[in-house]
Amino acid sequence: MNYADRLHTAIEKTGNACLLGIDPHLDLLPEQYGAARDPSLPRAERAAAMGDFCIALLDLAKGRVPAVKPQSAFFEVFGADGHAQWERVVAHAKTLRMLVVGDVKRGDIASTAAAYARGLLQGTGCAGEADHLCDAVTVNAFLGEESITPFLEVCEKTNTGIYVLVRTSNPGSADFQLCGEPTLSERIADAVDRWGEGLMGVNGYSSVGAVVGATHPAALAKMRARMPHTPLLLPGYGAQGAGAQDIASGFHKGGQGALVNSSRGISFAYKKAGRPCTEWREAATDALNVMIEEIGSVAHTAV
Amino acid sequence: MNYADRLHTAIEKTGNACLLGIDPHLDLLPEQYGAARDPSLPRAERAAAMGDFCIALLDLAKGRVPAVKPQSAFFEVFGADGHAQWERVVAHAKTLRMLVVGDVKRGDIASTAAAYARGLLQGTGCAGEADHLCDAVTVNAFLGEESITPFLEVCEKTNTGIYVLVRTSNPGSADFQLCGEPTLSERIADAVDRWGEGLMGVNGYSSVGAVVGATHPAALAKMRARMPHTPLLLPGYGAQGAGAQDIASGFHKGGQGALVNSSRGISFAYKKAGRPCTEWREAATDALNVMIEEIGSVAHTAV
Repeated sequence: MNYADRLHTAIEKTGNACLLGIDPHLDLLPEQYGAARDPSLPRAERAAAMGDFCIALLDLAKGRVPAVKPQSAFFEVFGADGHAQWERVVAHAKTLRMLVVGDVKRGDIASTAAAYARGLLQGTGCAGEADHLCDAVTVNAFLGEESITPFLEVCEKTNTGIYVLVRTSNPGSADFQLCGEPTLSERIADAVDRWGEGLMGVNGYSSVGAVVGATHPAALAKMRARMPHTPLLLPGYGAQGAGAQDIASGFHKGGQGALVNSSRGISFAYKKAGRPCTEWREAATDALNVMIEEIGSVAHTAV
Repeated sequence: MNYADRLHTAIEKTGNACLLGIDPHLDLLPEQYGAARDPSLPRAERAAAMGDFCIALLDLAKGRVPAVKPQSAFFEVFGADGHAQWERVVAHAKTLRMLVVGDVKRGDIASTAAAYARGLLQGTGCAGEADHLCDAVTVNAFLGEESITPFLEVCEKTNTGIYVLVRTSNPGSADFQLCGEPTLSERIADAVDRWGEGLMGVNGYSSVGAVVGATHPAALAKMRARMPHTPLLLPGYGAQGAGAQDIASGFHKGGQGALVNSSRGISFAYKKAGRPCTEWREAATDALNVMIEEIGSVAHTAV
């Protein structure tokens, strides 16, 4: 089954389209994981404390969300030791049968893009060793179609997917992404639609997705229409300010067509809720419950 | 001394502006490093063979070039084991007193960009452990000014630099980078010029550089004029087809203002020269000699 269909199944099975972001910001980790911040400890130990937090976060979301999205930057803070934790987190998510969308935003010339695709989605197949691969990754198309093609080839071989940055959720997205007429975002959207043609699943979606910020509801509706077969990844819900109604136009009938991401809004909910860090799990669970209900009610009323 | 001045000094000291790319393509490694390709070996061993090649490449360029540019994708092929080799290569280059420009092309929202900047340029300062940090990294500004600002802050603190992708060397660069009027590349160039204002060195250059492909000579001359204080990184020389005359307009008087990159053209010169892989070092040295002479003659006639 290709990525588009695996995603479709996962959304049906869990009954929601929530994408749990795994962003282990050092400064926001609950005090129980404070070893990650302690400069007197060896790097490997600090990285492991950060990894422990991610594992606990995955465990509390077990069976509840179709997919998770670890962010590579926070792992790379600890260099190779952080990378080992990234692999631990990816492996654990797969044990829990969650799809893994690696938020890496890679983008380079063709031969280099092929190396990224191999490392993230295909693996090197070393004897007796599991590759810790993502089911999909985010990519940046700034270097053009040739930076995407190597990913498409690997996606076809390994039943994986990509999400191309089209319009990001941050305020700064307007600086360059709205450049030109049609805008840069619109041009990339048209390319995404085309790139997906060769990777269609049986459920009407392709394995080539698009990142479109939930923080731009008007643009989102237009993007949904412009890329009718594209699975969307909608960041910006929660901590970045978008509400449930803002993401409604990203969905198709039956609650398919989009994943809605929340990262800090779930993992560090204890801060916003003013609860002690010892209750971070309960606060995260409560926030996840609210999100699942909110997104569910919007997604399932889509027409 | 800030990055701009450290770079200036390194170019003066070596007498040339060659940037040696470290792109350990698995398929192109000389047979002596074939262990990197052997699926029957453990991943750590394969990664180490790839690292051995990079170390040998650095050794043959010792004292000859001001800077080297390892490409993260080829290391990430081997996951955490590859990342450990990346750190080994960065550490070795610094031992040889070469500046390290990490070609990582990261770009993300502000809080995430801050984590990348910390991991690549600042470090976590674990007791008794060296951080293996770059002197500069390449970044992608697609997410706007807020994706760059965290890097600027770290660059100021740690005397490091960035090279923002403005116009890449690959044919696909035309797909999106020429979008709009002024073009996307021109808009980013204007921003690079502005971002550099706060990070000026005593020699008239800022620590905020720009990547402009040597494969577009006409565009290069315009970009040089548009960003008068910006150190340029010019990829595309050699294997990608640009010759010495194509890069002339990137330089200022005295051979300053730009670094010219060659990766495969040096490291895998034995292939193009039709020499046995046992002579890869000699072939690479010959190619490096030619490049140093060619670039030198062009750079030092700049007006």
